[in-house]
Amino acid sequence: MKKDWKNIDFLRHVRHDWLNKVQLIKGNLALNKEERVKEIIDDIIREAQQEARLSNLELPDFALLLLTLNWESYCFHLEYEVLNDEKCQYIEDAVLTKWTAMLFNVLDKSAKSFYENHLSVSIAPESNGIRLFFDFSGIITDRALIDDFLHAKSPKSIKVEIHALMDEEIALEVFVENESASG
Amino acid sequence: MKKDWKNIDFLRHVRHDWLNKVQLIKGNLALNKEERVKEIIDDIIREAQQEARLSNLELPDFALLLLTLNWESYCFHLEYEVLNDEKCQYIEDAVLTKWTAMLFNVLDKSAKSFYENHLSVSIAPESNGIRLFFDFSGIITDRALIDDFLHAKSPKSIKVEIHALMDEEIALEVFVENESASG
Repeated sequence: MKKDWKNIDFLRHVRHDWLNKVQLIKGNLALNKEERVKEIIDDIIREAQQEARLSNLELPDFALLLLTLNWESYCFHLEYEVLNDEKCQYIEDAVLTKWTAMLFNVLDKSAKSFYENHLSVSIAPESNGIRLFFDFSGIITDRALIDDFLHAKSPKSIKVEIHALMDEEIALEVFVENESASG
Repeated sequence: MKKDWKNIDFLRHVRHDWLNKVQLIKGNLALNKEERVKEIIDDIIREAQQEARLSNLELPDFALLLLTLNWESYCFHLEYEVLNDEKCQYIEDAVLTKWTAMLFNVLDKSAKSFYENHLSVSIAPESNGIRLFFDFSGIITDRALIDDFLHAKSPKSIKVEIHALMDEEIALEVFVENESASG
């Protein structure tokens, strides 16, 4: 399900992403759009801060899943935000990662290919677990598939609340309990 | 000898390196030094091209050794250049990497700590092997150590030529033969 990235390939993707950003700065500089360049730089710094927060959650598999998803050919673009600096050392990384990867695969199969689908994930670490908000906007062509997945039995520590499940929008609130609390 | 980088740590270092570059652009923009910004961007693009060439040599361990060396606390700063786009699929990556890592460790032990030591490596893939030029500038405090290493028996496929071995400069030319040729 999850690709085992070799460091060299990994670095290739990272370099590609960063070079795109630098080329964007270069292009806007050439057009003398200084204000735009400043915005781009601020965006880059903000993104890097989010990446650092995600990496610091102490959920390495989950972080890696989110950090590398856009390198694979999913039919949606992923954005994420980590809402605070708490650590999640009591969350079962493998359980959370497996469930989230399944959700991503189901979304990939149920959304329209070659369309601008977006998935935004907000991550709120809490004292007794982690709360995730998944917001999909785009076109769902196979709603039954995602419906089945969301109503199937999820691991004991994972509670899924469906706020919206429509053809152009899905909103989920997922709470994952700490290991000790659910055991 | 070589650290086994976890992807998350790896990404942390890469992000740190790139963020430094972006901050450098930001700082010079704030000072209205547009020409300097253009130079920095061109340097970034050139560096990324070199990194891509190194990654494409088909010597993943060797590439990784060079790409990650500056993240570890060696007492010299490494720069490298790959002189052409040839592949090196007949070179024994493990043999080359082990020897080079030993050279780096010996240099680290023989050079003056907390001094601005530099090591530049030029990499020239050739049809029957790969030619490497190591140029050290800085201060060597234990020349006997590096001398012993360079005069010790190296693997059969590795030929070392010493062009300079002085207290402030070392210049080596190393030729590594293709696997089939040396076997």
